[in-house]
Formats: sequence, structure tokens, C-alpha cells
Amino acid sequence: MKVPPDLLSFLKEEDNFIIATHIDPEPDAIGSSIALSIALERLGKKTVLYDRDNIPEIYRFLPGCEKFTNSISSLNTSHLPVILLDCNTLERAGIKNSSFRLTAVVDHHETEQTYGDIKWIEPEAAATGIMVFYLLKDLGIKITEDIALNLYSAIAIDTGTFRYSNTTSEVFRISAELVEAGAKPAYVAHSLYETWSEHRFALLIMALNTLDIKDSLAITFVTKQMFKQTGTKPEDTENFANLPRVMKNIKIAAFFRELNDNHWKVSLRSKGDINVASIAKGFNGGGHKNAAGFEIKASLESGKEALLKAVSPVFKSP
Amino acid sequence: MKVPPDLLSFLKEEDNFIIATHIDPEPDAIGSSIALSIALERLGKKTVLYDRDNIPEIYRFLPGCEKFTNSISSLNTSHLPVILLDCNTLERAGIKNSSFRLTAVVDHHETEQTYGDIKWIEPEAAATGIMVFYLLKDLGIKITEDIALNLYSAIAIDTGTFRYSNTTSEVFRISAELVEAGAKPAYVAHSLYETWSEHRFALLIMALNTLDIKDSLAITFVTKQMFKQTGTKPEDTENFANLPRVMKNIKIAAFFRELNDNHWKVSLRSKGDINVASIAKGFNGGGHKNAAGFEIKASLESGKEALLKAVSPVFKSP
Repeated sequence: MKVPPDLLSFLKEEDNFIIATHIDPEPDAIGSSIALSIALERLGKKTVLYDRDNIPEIYRFLPGCEKFTNSISSLNTSHLPVILLDCNTLERAGIKNSSFRLTAVVDHHETEQTYGDIKWIEPEAAATGIMVFYLLKDLGIKITEDIALNLYSAIAIDTGTFRYSNTTSEVFRISAELVEAGAKPAYVAHSLYETWSEHRFALLIMALNTLDIKDSLAITFVTKQMFKQTGTKPEDTENFANLPRVMKNIKIAAFFRELNDNHWKVSLRSKGDINVASIAKGFNGGGHKNAAGFEIKASLESGKEALLKAVSPVFKSP
Repeated sequence: MKVPPDLLSFLKEEDNFIIATHIDPEPDAIGSSIALSIALERLGKKTVLYDRDNIPEIYRFLPGCEKFTNSISSLNTSHLPVILLDCNTLERAGIKNSSFRLTAVVDHHETEQTYGDIKWIEPEAAATGIMVFYLLKDLGIKITEDIALNLYSAIAIDTGTFRYSNTTSEVFRISAELVEAGAKPAYVAHSLYETWSEHRFALLIMALNTLDIKDSLAITFVTKQMFKQTGTKPEDTENFANLPRVMKNIKIAAFFRELNDNHWKVSLRSKGDINVASIAKGFNGGGHKNAAGFEIKASLESGKEALLKAVSPVFKSP
């Protein structure tokens, strides 16, 4: 992986930067941005870290996250350069009414977009954090403990803590270096995965008790009543859809969350080559191949039946 | 980490070995043993791989696991040397009525035992697989794909796939090398975590429904009756102990498995600096700092009370 020379020149020559990342930020977006910001400031430059949305509570263990602002409207941005990190359009960064003198894009998401004056897109990189790691090396920046923790967390989240197929030997070698620089794997794993409330865990158990297996489809659900009973919120169901995937014979896991009477949000998670985005589209929803969703106005039973009907051809195809 | 010269001499000089590992084998025991066996056979030696218990179905993806035998009674072992891997007593290997000419011990479990003619004990090693990796290097053995897959799985299981505090930079560097030699992280993660039977998942839900939180201790259990009801086996409870750890306020998760009336196997999992090995020792058990276990002959209620009493001082210490 080679950092483009024009990107390096740009970072060395400019003095002020806006670093913007995508809406609904997660640790690759947050950690990569903070690490780059620390590095540029070490070189005597000024940076503004921008995200349209607030940093979620669970990711506030990332040192430097308090530097994010969600307002750049007061800045005269038109004479400033912007660096888009972990995204490749202003739209994905939630930026609508600002213009910039120059735009640089550093991202690992595949794209057909041609946006950006200076572009570095590496779809093979497991995380944008990996790209920023190489950037910092080329800029001659020492990896401090804060930088290491941010970049390690970026890599951890985007590789499913070293479980996804993007976990290469390069990912492990860089992680080794980040641990030597002060990143603590157990602390990061704890911060990412072990900060559930007891209420949230109680809700999970309730959801699991609703498990209904039909063919290779596993369905679980939570009702408004369950939220009330456990004192939890919809965001507490994050990742609930994934758990039934541990079963060997389950190809799709569906999670129904009650929005209103006879109105459900359905999250679909699939394994391998099974495309749930196309199933979700059939219900006017959308998403990615292995993670998609839709809303349905129906009783729980009718909703389940409609879904089973929609997924059956997928199970039958070779 | 340095391989003792007398261990290397012993491995080079002998021609026949029995490699024995602990009862209830998991991937560190299995993978380390297979890797060492392949290496010694590459040097023209003969090995017998012994485990008292059968290799659990879920770990049979490890290449070479079919070479394990659970009978050495027909062998005239008294003129043979034995290598104890990932354990440090014959008792822990379930060997009762056999004697050996010489005993070598290669283990990362902390021990006060002085058993073994040749000993290499490294409590700082994240897995016995790490020790075997260094052994193979010193023996000049090329890491093949089969060896890499076995050693990577050994490391993956004993570090909680890179989530426990034993995940050092060394662990990442060795994993990088094993991936380069052919280990596939996503395949291992899938094999370890996504091959559950529906029966096993049903048992998990039953276990979660027994959740009892006392202070910072979370207790779950399964009974013989639950195994019967779901058509599952003790090995199906692997990792059940871990799940309640996702709760922020839980410092220790304990999982009680009924062996017989008023007789339980208790698995303990802790976070961070909380040492459950010392708690297990108090019940004549053992293990590592964050994963240990013991047996107790008591009713479930008495067992829970005894445990709560034992862990209370740990919760109170700063």
C-alpha cells in the first residue's frame, strides 16, 4: 500500500484542515480522524474535526473524541481544504451547504464516484485506520499511545476483532506495532463489547426466548412492551440480529422490532453469498449483501409469513 | 521466550514419542499437540497422539485431529518418553496406570508442581501454541498450512480471538506469520463460533434463563435434565460461561454444569485484573487468571453461596 505523493505534499504544504468523516460514526471513522488530527497538529498545523452526528456514548473511550464538532457553519470554509476520511462524498459526511477550496479523500470503501481533488481509495485495506497508519509513517510521525489506541480500535471494529476475511497478515503486523506503541487489546475489546447494561442483557434474553426457526431462517423479535418492561431503548437492540447466526444451519437471521401496533422494523443478517439486500428491496428496504433491513405494516405472524415466502427461493437456489 | 536446550536435545535424540494433552481438550491442547506431532514426524520420528477424551465434534476442523487415540494401554509405554502438552501432570492428562521412561512437560499454565524430568513452563505465554511455534522454529521446521492452522487456532482460542489481556504484540506477530503460512482467520472464526447445532442454541437460551446476578457476579447453570431435554452434551456448553461478561458491571461470570446430583463443574471467567485462578484454587481447582474452574460437591444453592463468599473480597479490593 503506497501513499500517493500528491496527498503527502498536500498534507505537508497546507496549514489548516477540516477533517470530516461519515454520519453515524463508528470507531474506524472516529479513530482514523483523531489519529490524523493529532499527527497534523504535531506538525504545527491546525485541524477541525467534523461529524454531523454526535459520537455515540459507547465510542467515547477513544482519546480525543471530545474534539469533534458537529457545526462548521460558523467557519468560512470556502478558503479551507477538507479531508474526507472513511467516506468519499460530502453527502456521506452529511455536509450540505459548505464549499471548500480543495477536497482530499482517504477511504477504503469501494466507489465509482470521482469526487475529490486528491484521492486515495484502497478497497483492499481492512480499515481506513490502516491507511492512516501508513500516512503517519510517511509523514514521520511517532505513533503515540493515543494514536495507537485510535488506530487499533479502527482496525478492531472493521475486522470484527480479527474474525472477518479482511484479517490479513498485514492487519496483524500493524496491530502488533500499535500494541507496542500502547494500544491495549483487552481494553479495546472491553470498551467495544462488554459495556452492556443489565437491562440490555435482560432484553436480549427475552428476544432469544422468541426464537422461531423456519427452514434456514431464524426469527427473533422484541415488542414495545419488552422495552418498557426492561427499561431499554431501540438502540439497545444493536447486534441482536446477529446472534442466531452462530447456528450452522441458519443462513438468514431476522430480527423484528415493534415500532407500533402492526408495524415492524425488520433487520436481516445473512452468511456468505446469501444476499439479503435484494430480499429487503422486495419490501422497499435496502442495505448491503449480508446486512439489510425494511419496515413492514402487518401483524407479527403475517410479517413472518411474508418474509419466509420471500426467502424460500434463496434457500432453494444452489 | 527461550526453548530450554535440554528439551531441544531430548526432541532431537529420541525416536519415538507419546504426546499427551489434557482431558476435555480444546484447540490449544489439540492444535499444539498436532503441530508438534507433524514437526517430529517431519524429522523422521514416530509419535502417538493421546487424549483420554474424544476430540469434540466442533474442533474436528483441525487437520490431523483424526490421529488422536484414547487408548495407550496396549502400548508398552514404560520404555517410551511422554511429552505432556498444555498440562503438567499425568493426572491432568487422565493417565492413570501407565509409566514412562522419561517425562517432558511443555505448558503455559501456572503451576507449583515439580513433575517432569524436562520442564518448560511459561505462564506468560498466551497459549501453548506460542511455545510450540518457538519450538518448531528452533527445530528448523517449516510452518506448513496444516501446522499454521493448528497453531493459529490454539492462539485464537486462548486469547478469545485477540480480546483477552494476554493478547500481546508477540501474539499478533506470530499470528501474522501463521496467516502468511496459510492460516485463514475467517475460516477459524467461523469454525470456532458459527457451527452450533440448533440444540446447542436451545441449551444456551435455557442457560441464560437461569441468570442470577449477585453483586458483580453473574451465575448461570445447566442441569443434566436440560442436556436430556435438548439432546446436547457437556461439550456443547463450551463458551457459555463467557456471555454474561458483556455486562459492564459484571466482573466475574460463573457457569455451573451439573455432573451428578449435588456435584457441579464450575467455570469462572473474569475481566481485567481479577484473578479467578486463585479463587478456583480455593476450591481445589485451577486455570488461568481470567479463565479457571473447579468442581464442587454441594447443592446448587450451597455452591452459589460458597462461590459468592469466595469472590466477595475480590470485589471489595480496590
